[in-house]
Formats: sequence, C-alpha cells, structure tokens
Amino acid sequence: MIDRDELAAWLRLVGTAGVGREAVRRLLGEFGSPQAAIDASIEARRGIVGPAAAAALAVEPDGFAALLAATLAWLDGRPAGEAGGRDVLVLGDPRYPEALLQTADPPTLLYVEGRIGLLAADAIAIVGSRNPTAQGLENARAFASLLSRAGLVVVSGLALGIDGAAHEGALDGQAGGATGGTIAVVGTGLDRVYPARHRALAHRIAAAGLLVSEFPLGTASRPENFPVRNRIIAGLARGTLVVEAALRSGSLITARMALEAGREVFAIPGSIHSPQARGCNALLKQGAKLVDSAGDILEEFGGVRPTPADRPGAAEPAPAGKVDPVLAALGFDPIGLDALIARTGMGAAELSARLLDLELAGRVARLPGQVFQRVERG
Amino acid sequence: MIDRDELAAWLRLVGTAGVGREAVRRLLGEFGSPQAAIDASIEARRGIVGPAAAAALAVEPDGFAALLAATLAWLDGRPAGEAGGRDVLVLGDPRYPEALLQTADPPTLLYVEGRIGLLAADAIAIVGSRNPTAQGLENARAFASLLSRAGLVVVSGLALGIDGAAHEGALDGQAGGATGGTIAVVGTGLDRVYPARHRALAHRIAAAGLLVSEFPLGTASRPENFPVRNRIIAGLARGTLVVEAALRSGSLITARMALEAGREVFAIPGSIHSPQARGCNALLKQGAKLVDSAGDILEEFGGVRPTPADRPGAAEPAPAGKVDPVLAALGFDPIGLDALIARTGMGAAELSARLLDLELAGRVARLPGQVFQRVERG
Repeated sequence: MIDRDELAAWLRLVGTAGVGREAVRRLLGEFGSPQAAIDASIEARRGIVGPAAAAALAVEPDGFAALLAATLAWLDGRPAGEAGGRDVLVLGDPRYPEALLQTADPPTLLYVEGRIGLLAADAIAIVGSRNPTAQGLENARAFASLLSRAGLVVVSGLALGIDGAAHEGALDGQAGGATGGTIAVVGTGLDRVYPARHRALAHRIAAAGLLVSEFPLGTASRPENFPVRNRIIAGLARGTLVVEAALRSGSLITARMALEAGREVFAIPGSIHSPQARGCNALLKQGAKLVDSAGDILEEFGGVRPTPADRPGAAEPAPAGKVDPVLAALGFDPIGLDALIARTGMGAAELSARLLDLELAGRVARLPGQVFQRVERG
Repeated sequence: MIDRDELAAWLRLVGTAGVGREAVRRLLGEFGSPQAAIDASIEARRGIVGPAAAAALAVEPDGFAALLAATLAWLDGRPAGEAGGRDVLVLGDPRYPEALLQTADPPTLLYVEGRIGLLAADAIAIVGSRNPTAQGLENARAFASLLSRAGLVVVSGLALGIDGAAHEGALDGQAGGATGGTIAVVGTGLDRVYPARHRALAHRIAAAGLLVSEFPLGTASRPENFPVRNRIIAGLARGTLVVEAALRSGSLITARMALEAGREVFAIPGSIHSPQARGCNALLKQGAKLVDSAGDILEEFGGVRPTPADRPGAAEPAPAGKVDPVLAALGFDPIGLDALIARTGMGAAELSARLLDLELAGRVARLPGQVFQRVERG
C-alpha cells in the first residue's frame, strides 16, 4: 500500500497542469523522487522542464486537497491486500507491470482495484468493435475463455461489444482464479466506471479480476482519453487480438500501439463483405497473424507464465468438457446420414433421435438431402 | 498449325510408356528433335534415358496409328487460325506460353482449342472448392469479371463450383474479347471434356476463350491426373487466387505449385467457422496475400500485359455501370434513415420508396430501428 505522503507528492507531480509524462520522467531522473522534485528550486527545475512547468510545480494545483482526500478515502474504502483491494502503483514500484514499463510512454501512476497479482502474469489483449456481430461476440467469449483457462490474463477496455464479451469469457475460463483472469483498463477514474451498462461486469472484475486506470479519480468519460488508454491495453499484453473491427476504429489504434511496443498483433479473419471484418482483414494485409483458434496464440507465445496464485484455495481446473460422440463423428464438413451411421456405429433410429436433439440445441444444422453439419459455437 | 510428320514424332515420343517428361527433355536436348531421337540407335539413347526407355522408343506404341489418326481428325475438325480453332503446341514452338516454360516441369505438348493468343497475355488463376457457398460463387464471378475487364486472362480448371463461376465471370467481363478472357485447363483429352454439366460452358470457352490440355485425345477423367493438371493452371498464371477451399483440397495443391513456381498466392479470407474458408485461412497463415478486392491483385501485378487483339472488330469496353446514389450514400456500414436523408438530400418519402425498391431487389437490408445496410453482390 502506498504511503500517504508519497501519494500526495505523486498526485501533485502528475496533477500539475503543463507537466506531462515525459517531463515527470525527466524530473524523477534528475531529483530521484516526486517530493525532491517539488522541493527543488524553480531555477533547479528550469533547465529540465522549461520555465513554465518549473514555476507551475511551485504552487499546489487548484482542488488538490480535495483530490488527495478523495483518493485517500477511495483507497480506505477497500484496503489493498484484500480481495478487491485498491492501490496506486507508481513508476519504480516493484509491482509496476514489467511489460508496461518496456513501452515508450508508461503511465506515471496506475490506480488498481482487484487482484494486483494479475499484472505479473503473461497477458493477451482482446479488443474489437462496440457493434459486433453475434458471431464476433461468441468468438471473443470463446477465445478469452480458452486463453484464460490456459493461464493467460485477458486485457481489454470494458467497452460494450467485443471488450465486454472478452472479459466475461476470461472470467468464465479462469477456473476459480487458479489460472488466467482478466484486467479491464478504463479511460475514466476508477470511481466512475463507464459504460453504465457494464457496472455489474466491472464489479465482477474488481472482485475476481483487476480494474486499472491511469486517470485520477473523478475523471469522466472523454473521447480523447480512449486512445491514451488503449496504449495501456496494448502495453500490458504480449500480444493484441482484434476479434472484429470496422475500418478506422479504436481497435486498430490499439493494434498499432501493440506493434509500436514490439508486440504481436493477431486478427480473426472474416467475410470481405462484412463491415465488422474489414478492420481485421486490413490488419492481416499489413502482416498481422491470422488466428482461427486460441491454440494459434498459445503456440506463438510458446511457454505461458501463469497467473501467480494470489489467492489461497484456488479451485481445481474446470472439466475439459466431454465431446458428444455424434458431434465428434460429424466433424466440420457436411455429412450424409449413411456416412454418419458408418462413422458412429449407431443405429439409424438412435442416431436420428440424437441428431434431432442436437438440432434443437442449435449444435447441428440439417441441410437438404439428409445431410448434416455441425454448428460451431466459438 | 503443326506439321503432320512432326506431330507423329512428338506423339510417339510422349506416348511411349516409360518415357517421362524429364526423359523427353533430355532426349530433345541431346538429339534436337523428336524424330532424331526416334531415329537414333538404342545404344545412342541408352546413356541418356537408360536401357528400358531407350529400347521402348524403337517400337511404335500399341494403338499409335489410331491415336495419330484421331488427333489429325480432331485438328481437321476446326482448323487452327479460325475462331475456336484447334492446334497442338510443342516445347520450342514460339507460341508456347512463356510463363509455363519457366516452371520446373512444363508439359511437352499442349492441345489447345480457341483463342491461342490468350496464352501470351498476363494471367491470373482463380480456383476453389467444388462445393462452395453462394457467396463464394458470387466472389469468384465478381473477381473474375473485374480482372478480365482489367485485361487479365483468368485461368481455371473447368470444375464445378468456383472454377466454373470464375470462367463465367471472366467471359462476362471480357468486353467482347477486347481485353481479358479465360483459359480452361482440363485433366482429360480435349475430346472428352469433363464434367458433363459444364459441356455448354466448355463450348463457350472454346469459342470465346481457350481450352488447354496436355493429355492425349481419348484420355478420360482420372483422379490422379488432376494434380498434374493443376501445375499447368498455376504455371500459366502470374498468381493464383484461391476463393474458397476446404483444408486438404485440390486448390491448396494448385496454390503450393504456384509458390513452387515462384508465383504469388492470393486468398480471400472467411469466417473461421466456415469449412469452405478453412483452406484460404490456412494459406493466409502461411503467408498468402489477403485480398478483399480485385484491385488488390491489380496493384500487386503493377502493369498488366493485356490480351493481344487476336480478333478483328473487338467490341468497345462495357459501360462501367452507374452507381445508384442511394447505394453510394449508404456506404457499407449500417446507417439510420435520418443520417441517410442528410447524406442524400432526398425527401423522406422519396428516400423510403427508393429504399423499398432496393430492398426488394436484394441490394439493401432493413435492420431493426429504421437502420439500413447495403448488401454486396461481389
């Protein structure tokens, strides 16, 4: 848990208008700590950040006392170390995520709420359209669930659409917190989670995953903050998977930031006639890696550094799920009833009844001429 | 038109059992002509092709006289030089296609019927599944039509499904023979065009395009000949576009042969849940170029060497097609009625009537909440 006086110095440093992240890094490099930078003379600071910023740092910003009080109250609301605990990580904190530190512009402060240990695990960002297709949502959920189950933490932006489905899938796949999990990086203060429709999801993530923001408490949703936030999503992860995206969408910004940080970009292809696939297809043209299964990503990553066991009594892995023998025999190509009888060794009556069950469950489609085809749910 | 005696010597050379294409090339290299190779002593041939082949060439193959007579009769049926004329091209013939000559294993003979000049133009192979989706057929037709119109010759295999749609699209796009066109490379003798359902299409291609085979007259459809034929499809073209393909399909063999010949491989991406897209997605994983428009291929090819004007009075190019202003305003993303009124400047009543027309014509889909989306026909 961050020290009260130290927090005050950091908040003042990052909260002073006209002192950007680059200036903060130069001041820390010169003076060693925020307090030392503030205590230094204007003259001493001038050569490092210019006269305006040097002078600005001599004066406490407007509303600073209220912001500090609100931040301390927020931290006290759920103490660090508990499940769902809150904390502020600063540059130089040993818990500050290594992957983010290796980017060109790491945030100075990170407000966090939840399982802070998730920041140490290998992560995959899963992002995409706020207006996805039904299949896109299904894909986001399925990839996130499988990758979380395999031990990766799924990072996304809590937006409607693909982001939300990715968080949900990761929570479903994390098998009681033993592996995987999810991190939501938001573009608002952590006391103002947006969008409102994802409030319940944000609570689930605070309890079983991790909420992250670099924005001070009270920061409302502002369009210009979303690209800034996207660099954290890309920076926390070893790679970014774009599930569905239109051309000129925020997800493509995240993908570009991942490339700039030297990370992998993965994309799920789609019909050339689907507007929601255009962005992914464009990324694939530019050299993103095509993935059609979660295994493609795991293979690319080689070994996965799993989630640290930051909670005792983590549950055993979920059962792998028995594959229905008829579904297994169907494979993924259309197949006639006779061939299916031969493949399964079942009688025609028994098989027909089972196919009807599967059809009613939406797992099998009946094509003309007694031909059947498996319907894939991600 | 090939000389009768010369044809006899070539037919005997390639028709002798145990003398493969590689042996034929060695014999031609040593003796200069098929007749000289046949007239040489067994001893003289032995060091070049081994004792068995050397001896076999001393004896006229079984049924040779009948094959020669049938071939001459076939040639006489539609003399070379006429529209739909027939000919046999041999290695060394100046009309033998340069692109094919640059492959590792060019056919010794090519039976041709139609516009032989098409062999001199820049070509794109378009291949794919015999069991495509409706959209796959539409894509094959649309890409072939546009590429043909742009001056490329479309090469395919006359199979059901994607191949047939590619030939049809190319014929539609060739604007009266002034540019583009299509070449069908078949795996049977040219007197036995397969499949039967494509007989009418084969006649259209013989008249307005070109049929090509390396197999002697009378050769029936044999599965083992199809991969052999596929190397000609890939070899005639500057690149191969796979429109839709299952995993482990013949189209992927054609794509591999294109790569081996140092040609480009293009693929249209598709849903990761569509069996017909799996082959294309797999090619894209392996480095094939993703295309979502015909323009991507034209851009990759840079300048296109157009079809030689081998017929006088070639027609003027077809009209480019006026774009409906409402369709243009719709773009490719869903759009609300109000936004569309603003974009088009049309009144609500007029616009609604026009949208209904477009909906009935299948060009526009009506989504919930007065939202409209353009439906793309390739």
